[in-house]
Amino acid sequence: MTTPLQGNAIIGQSGGPTAVINQSLVGVVEGLHAAKFKGKIFGARHAVDGMMSGDYIDLTAWPQDRLDRLAATPSSGLGSSRSKPKADDVKAMTKYFEKHNVRYFFYIGGNDSSDTCRIVSEIAQADGYEMHSFHIPKTVDNDLVLNDHTPGWGSAAKFVAQAFMGDDLDNQALPGIKINVVMGRHAGFLTAASVLGRRPGTNDGPHLVYVPEADFDAEKFVKDVAKVYDKIGRCVVAVSEGIHDKDGTPMAAKLAQMQGHRVERDAHGNVQLSGSGALADFLAQAVKDYMGRRTRVRADTYGYLQRSFAGLVSENDAAEARAAGRKAAELACSGVRSGSIAIQRVPGNDYKIEYNRIELTDVAAKTRHLPTEWIVKGNNISEKFVEYAAPIVGKLPVTERVD
Amino acid sequence: MTTPLQGNAIIGQSGGPTAVINQSLVGVVEGLHAAKFKGKIFGARHAVDGMMSGDYIDLTAWPQDRLDRLAATPSSGLGSSRSKPKADDVKAMTKYFEKHNVRYFFYIGGNDSSDTCRIVSEIAQADGYEMHSFHIPKTVDNDLVLNDHTPGWGSAAKFVAQAFMGDDLDNQALPGIKINVVMGRHAGFLTAASVLGRRPGTNDGPHLVYVPEADFDAEKFVKDVAKVYDKIGRCVVAVSEGIHDKDGTPMAAKLAQMQGHRVERDAHGNVQLSGSGALADFLAQAVKDYMGRRTRVRADTYGYLQRSFAGLVSENDAAEARAAGRKAAELACSGVRSGSIAIQRVPGNDYKIEYNRIELTDVAAKTRHLPTEWIVKGNNISEKFVEYAAPIVGKLPVTERVD
Repeated sequence: MTTPLQGNAIIGQSGGPTAVINQSLVGVVEGLHAAKFKGKIFGARHAVDGMMSGDYIDLTAWPQDRLDRLAATPSSGLGSSRSKPKADDVKAMTKYFEKHNVRYFFYIGGNDSSDTCRIVSEIAQADGYEMHSFHIPKTVDNDLVLNDHTPGWGSAAKFVAQAFMGDDLDNQALPGIKINVVMGRHAGFLTAASVLGRRPGTNDGPHLVYVPEADFDAEKFVKDVAKVYDKIGRCVVAVSEGIHDKDGTPMAAKLAQMQGHRVERDAHGNVQLSGSGALADFLAQAVKDYMGRRTRVRADTYGYLQRSFAGLVSENDAAEARAAGRKAAELACSGVRSGSIAIQRVPGNDYKIEYNRIELTDVAAKTRHLPTEWIVKGNNISEKFVEYAAPIVGKLPVTERVD
Repeated sequence: MTTPLQGNAIIGQSGGPTAVINQSLVGVVEGLHAAKFKGKIFGARHAVDGMMSGDYIDLTAWPQDRLDRLAATPSSGLGSSRSKPKADDVKAMTKYFEKHNVRYFFYIGGNDSSDTCRIVSEIAQADGYEMHSFHIPKTVDNDLVLNDHTPGWGSAAKFVAQAFMGDDLDNQALPGIKINVVMGRHAGFLTAASVLGRRPGTNDGPHLVYVPEADFDAEKFVKDVAKVYDKIGRCVVAVSEGIHDKDGTPMAAKLAQMQGHRVERDAHGNVQLSGSGALADFLAQAVKDYMGRRTRVRADTYGYLQRSFAGLVSENDAAEARAAGRKAAELACSGVRSGSIAIQRVPGNDYKIEYNRIELTDVAAKTRHLPTEWIVKGNNISEKFVEYAAPIVGKLPVTERVD
């Protein structure tokens, strides 16, 4: 703890948008106001890109009703970026930080973004530029270490759960095999959310769930599907976009190469997975080839709908995203120099959350995985996951069946 | 008008499920109870398939709370079918109709289903089996003639509108080209709904909209996209799955043939369009090839999510689906022998709907199209459509921007 610096604040939103990332942005603004912050509150357009070019916007005087509307708006209101700044880029940023006397740096994002926050913080410090640097967690992948869960995931998980509820009912009406590909590069949390609307002890789907934490074997996959189909006459499958073979090669990348397409990568080295239906179509074709008969096989890729659908959020997720932003502002204004806000669950029967400060280096560029004990036989998800996720995601629609 | 027949009733749900088709099922049951119907109320599992095999379920004694829960459940609770019955099939059905003394036949579905209802009604009549036969409209395609709109479309349109609102905000945050394929075989109403959240006078997307009512030219398409992208640095595109070239060949079918896949058709001769991301991926690749530079191009296919997502309906759509079912029961119980319920708008400033009886032959197997005057330059949708659709779809989420 030190004396808070005198100066202005900047906020950036980085990486993939979520339905509640603007809650965190507004949380920071509210937290600064609540702490009687004297400086200006800037937003950087398109995260580090706007910081490098001085593309700032002044949020200081925004009235509460406008803040509230922005908080309820999906996607990153300031614009986002997937750029990873190098030392020279950080020097470009600090030039504008100095020009505008920015001494409070808030960065909302996932594990790549927390690493960016760490890099900016460390380089600025090494250059003798004093600054408060805070990371606020955000990712639909739910893969930040030391966090019970991450803002953005709860709302995306709710979307996925409701999508599977509807799709499973659709598949009951017109039986066949239905494969749905869900976001999730390294972590299967979002794909696991497909089971949240499943009523225990019924034939509700999804009947098979494949996450990146279990190696994917296409031959076993088609056999799994055929087995379910032969037993109940239909089969709904959830597949993470990030499934990979036992060598760790993503199936989506293998497929793109097979088709002669260039494999796109971002600045963090991540292979492009979303924004294509190829993986789902490939899996559907593999099932058709294996079944060798006229079976109705369909595939959907949920794509970007999952992360920034307008008008569908988990209430807890929205509230927690806001509170995480407020907490970062509160800590910075009390003199703490840097950190990441971790959302941690208080042990006990009731769902209760604490917002704790952890070191940037503890979270940066690390990936948390779905606990292996929640994965059943490599192709399903256990009730332990449902117990974990239910309070985060909130109530799901009630359905009735003609049984 | 004749004297109502003495006997029991059967209800079927046919074709693609919707988010409100169970409202119509419950509406028929409620309408029969309200008319003091003395007979039993059966549901046929999987539409004509269950009628041909005598797979009936008794709904007569269902309590109101269970009916209400079923009404709020997406997809066809009784199960659906895409079978088109032939004369022999209808004989199989009438065998069970006679066995159970079924004299009231209610069939909920789209234009193929209204044709099925007509066939069953006509063959039964020709065979001397007296029966009341009613069709209740349902289709997310909104393509039934003589109807202002069709139950199921309003909720699917709301989903599409909210999806595009979120996706356009996502595209603003991480600019690039985004292509979304929307359901709609012959009619562009659902794809047109992509514009409902667009604020007039802004750069909001979708910036281009392609519907089956305008011939699709892939060369013009890529030029249209490049033009928007060069102007505003991003481009969101809505494309109907049913787009076809000037010869009428669906792009999806052309593509499947190009890739050496079998083109699936249902009993009504319809080519399979949904359940594959191939069309979207093809269009994305065409744009990448044309742009010839590292442009971020992504494609999503909304797929089955649009028609039976759990927990997202238009309130007017749900209420109208129920009322249409009630109206059919009411007419039948008052002695009317056959008909289809048409949802028609009362002229005037306020949104008001009437449920009118039309002949089965007037609606069966006919397709209504998006009025050409609502299509702008073959690649966009006018405000006239928004005026038409807004009250059907209902309120959309309010958003705020950092401008």
